Amino acid sequence: MKLSRKALQSDFSPMRKYYKASIEAKNRGISIYHLNIGQPDIETPKEYFKAIRGFNSKTDAYAPSQGSEDLLAAVVKYYKSIGQDITKDNVVITTGGSEALLFAAICTMDYGDEVLIPEPFYPNYATIFNAAGGVIKPIHTLHSEDYFYADPKKIGKLITRKTKALLLSNPNNPTGTAIGDKQMLDMLELCRENDIFLICDEVYREIYFGKEQKSSSALQFRDYDENVVVIDSASKRFSCCGSRIGALISRNNDIIQNSLKFAQARLSVSTINQAGAIALFDGITEKYSKELCEKYKRRIDVAVSELEKIPGVEVSVPAGAFYIMAALPIEDADEFQSWLLSSFDDNKETVMFAPGR
Amino acid sequence: MKLSRKALQSDFSPMRKYYKASIEAKNRGISIYHLNIGQPDIETPKEYFKAIRGFNSKTDAYAPSQGSEDLLAAVVKYYKSIGQDITKDNVVITTGGSEALLFAAICTMDYGDEVLIPEPFYPNYATIFNAAGGVIKPIHTLHSEDYFYADPKKIGKLITRKTKALLLSNPNNPTGTAIGDKQMLDMLELCRENDIFLICDEVYREIYFGKEQKSSSALQFRDYDENVVVIDSASKRFSCCGSRIGALISRNNDIIQNSLKFAQARLSVSTINQAGAIALFDGITEKYSKELCEKYKRRIDVAVSELEKIPGVEVSVPAGAFYIMAALPIEDADEFQSWLLSSFDDNKETVMFAPGR
Repeated sequence: MKLSRKALQSDFSPMRKYYKASIEAKNRGISIYHLNIGQPDIETPKEYFKAIRGFNSKTDAYAPSQGSEDLLAAVVKYYKSIGQDITKDNVVITTGGSEALLFAAICTMDYGDEVLIPEPFYPNYATIFNAAGGVIKPIHTLHSEDYFYADPKKIGKLITRKTKALLLSNPNNPTGTAIGDKQMLDMLELCRENDIFLICDEVYREIYFGKEQKSSSALQFRDYDENVVVIDSASKRFSCCGSRIGALISRNNDIIQNSLKFAQARLSVSTINQAGAIALFDGITEKYSKELCEKYKRRIDVAVSELEKIPGVEVSVPAGAFYIMAALPIEDADEFQSWLLSSFDDNKETVMFAPGR
Repeated sequence: MKLSRKALQSDFSPMRKYYKASIEAKNRGISIYHLNIGQPDIETPKEYFKAIRGFNSKTDAYAPSQGSEDLLAAVVKYYKSIGQDITKDNVVITTGGSEALLFAAICTMDYGDEVLIPEPFYPNYATIFNAAGGVIKPIHTLHSEDYFYADPKKIGKLITRKTKALLLSNPNNPTGTAIGDKQMLDMLELCRENDIFLICDEVYREIYFGKEQKSSSALQFRDYDENVVVIDSASKRFSCCGSRIGALISRNNDIIQNSLKFAQARLSVSTINQAGAIALFDGITEKYSKELCEKYKRRIDVAVSELEKIPGVEVSVPAGAFYIMAALPIEDADEFQSWLLSSFDDNKETVMFAPGR
């Protein structure tokens, strides 16, 4: 029996595919610095665990498919705090940002439809759009230009009759590039002119330390309500990646209603994790975000300055998110990663990273 | 902007689409008997909540994409207890049985590929296979034959070059039909002859009270290892629907490896809910299942005998799962459901059901 083309043409995640090799290395007594996955060591706010321990129903029952009423309200409140006026009807709570992205892909893509994404991009985008039958058209960007992509002329040339969406992450995972209001408006105008969606992954929204003003959210430009689909997540903002709480947010009612069909088909998001997330979206203040952001900034500064000392390594200084793109003086990143896990150690320590492309 | 065909041709879930109307009814002071969704009122075992409250990491971090090592071990142990010999390498932990089904659909279906399903079927199957670009070919069954479907000749005639899988639920949601070893072997032989998968949804495995022996699991017939994909879930077995812990189980390594690609793309299943589920799969004994099953049996007996007293109602007595198919003396089930919520009450009480088709 042959599996589907969309399965066979998908890759294993570069962040996850060395998991087995890493277990084997650990079994040999090697400890590993995990640079391969966006798993913060920062503590989840205590309010989250308090809410989870306080869950006092005797049955862990399904939640409403769209999300629990209290979590929807908390997400609306959080968006008010960053100046965006949305209602519960604009929100679908999802199992992580990943599921929000899957719903966006399923709702916009038929077989062979195209989505434009600045490259290098978060590799899981490819697998998720593959799953929905979509095809990624990369927007090539350059290390020497800090991976800037927001040129409407350049992107406009890539739009075909099959293009259904432009997918951005702002700040970008993994390049750290972030765009301001002016560029965001350019992107929105391009999308409206070509009748396509702007899917904006904003899970790193608050983690930004660039010099210029970053656009807060694609949701702020009300003339483009029909085009904008925002992907959001509690994972990075509140350092609770294991909670798998995300959201798809749009003022385009067709997007919400059709996402709801798929939300209903998978019944609900974890009830207990939603209870925990209410405490985060409802109770955690802007001050928390600022401190989080400063912490990441200090780490980025140290990492960049140390990487720059290594001969042959080229580093791009990120303006946001918490990744660094570094060109290493090696021929094959996959081979190098395998070797680091299977044959290398420095005082019983080694490193895992995500090979770029 | 037009959304994808697969979104537009999907329906809202018949179990979930009246959610808003039900909230409105509740706001008018009407209390509702929820017969529309498989949400048990039975308590989740205390071991589950104890494990969740005992979660003592300071960061709720991602779990491995395939599932936490301890949960994989606990699922393997549970399968041993029902006589099935599997290893961790045969299991992918998923966000509910729904995600296991989605992975099975994505891995087997390209656009226009067909899956055979006995009808009436769990309506969310349609949306999930739609999402993957698949097409459902129903196997018509009759109320007068207790919805029996397992006739290889009848099903064989429906198989085309595009057929990639036969999807069964055993016991069946919503008809309660269950098949024994003889029929399961017929189905497996049919699948092997035609080089297609048998996707067997066994989430109601332990809830069975029919007279004849039910097949325990499609996994028990080792000659058909390559064909069998089992969908499983903690939801019904341990009355923890909100925990969203499921599993895809197969000895076909291509299925596992390709499901893992999509599992990696969505990063992980809830870490805390996996901690809770370990206590269930590892600690809850066969005795619990038996008592659960007896409880449902008593309820089914009462419901069937009361329904049979209503003139014009035809009831099919289920052999397993916990649903009842009843033909009501009405013209349009959707209209009737809307009316029950918007315009009817008996002493401030009304009923929600899932309109069949």
